[in-house]
Amino acid sequence: MSLIEALNWRYATKKMNGQKVPQEKVDQILEAARLAPTSSGLQPFKIIVVTNPELKEKISAVAYGQTQIVDSSHLLVFAAWDNYTVENIKAAFIHANAQRNLPAETTKDYEERLIGMYTGRTPEENFNHAARQAYIGFGVAIAEAALLKVDATPMEGFDPQKLDELLDLKSKNLRSTTLLPLGYRDHEGDWLVNLKKVRTPLEDFIIEVK
Amino acid sequence: MSLIEALNWRYATKKMNGQKVPQEKVDQILEAARLAPTSSGLQPFKIIVVTNPELKEKISAVAYGQTQIVDSSHLLVFAAWDNYTVENIKAAFIHANAQRNLPAETTKDYEERLIGMYTGRTPEENFNHAARQAYIGFGVAIAEAALLKVDATPMEGFDPQKLDELLDLKSKNLRSTTLLPLGYRDHEGDWLVNLKKVRTPLEDFIIEVK
Repeated sequence: MSLIEALNWRYATKKMNGQKVPQEKVDQILEAARLAPTSSGLQPFKIIVVTNPELKEKISAVAYGQTQIVDSSHLLVFAAWDNYTVENIKAAFIHANAQRNLPAETTKDYEERLIGMYTGRTPEENFNHAARQAYIGFGVAIAEAALLKVDATPMEGFDPQKLDELLDLKSKNLRSTTLLPLGYRDHEGDWLVNLKKVRTPLEDFIIEVK
Repeated sequence: MSLIEALNWRYATKKMNGQKVPQEKVDQILEAARLAPTSSGLQPFKIIVVTNPELKEKISAVAYGQTQIVDSSHLLVFAAWDNYTVENIKAAFIHANAQRNLPAETTKDYEERLIGMYTGRTPEENFNHAARQAYIGFGVAIAEAALLKVDATPMEGFDPQKLDELLDLKSKNLRSTTLLPLGYRDHEGDWLVNLKKVRTPLEDFIIEVK
């Protein structure tokens, strides 16, 4: 199946049937998100994978009771760094240089420029930037789920502060940005499953400058 | 090629060779972005497709002289709505209901709730939200380019205000968020092409809550 066919197949599943997604497929969705590009390769986000039924119930309660969270097989929570700091930028460069067998000197100037740039911004500005990077991985994860015929519901409708508390994200210097329950559509119970997919017509979506 | 293989193949191309990407492939990349999900399906972004060489030169000049812009075949500019307004929200619902042969009444409550929510926020908050939606499409476009073996460089390094002026985006109620030059890697001239891809190890990227 091509990605375009997969994107036409997928939809924001409103009712899931509780069936488990094989771990192998979940792993591929996580791997796709891990491989997604981010600004300067810093990967300023993590994915929290929730399968615990009681915790899913509690998360649903801070997400307007949306049932996909409970009926999903795995709930992915995309959480971005709450700030860019000297520490997390340095750690990323130490890791990258070690992986590439490069001396620290190689990236010193670039690293210092990034540290100067980010530490000159407010934590809120930095979080917003990190959140955008998380959304790239979110898009790639949605694409991979669709290719694997796993249903997924991209969700922003939840109380991020309450979710951060439930998952103890503050202590990890993370803030939740989006949810992606993974599972399988309930054909009978889902009001959206048979509605036509609607998108902006191509001629309104694209502006060509030749 | 699987998406994971494609994501391992791709990298942030630093030097492109000027070769043209077939229009059919560009169209598939644009279509993938168009099919990407967005919050409430509002699709608050557009893609400006630039092929004009003089304009690419001018854009490169406001993007630290990065040569991929000039050497690309097509430059995609992802631009988000500068605000959510009564007008653009209503227009999206009129379009969706027409596509689905539904009376306006069907979505009236939901539409009014969205209008209330967005018009209660500042334009800057709304732009930031719209920009995040653009990043989902950006991620999906990057995935599709990789699957088609088209090189692409995700870029945030440019002066958005100057780019908005060059493309006259303000008059279109848009603001630029990211660039995606499409083309083909120059194996000889690209310092990054042979460096190992580095990502956060899976055990640091994922937090499992069972």
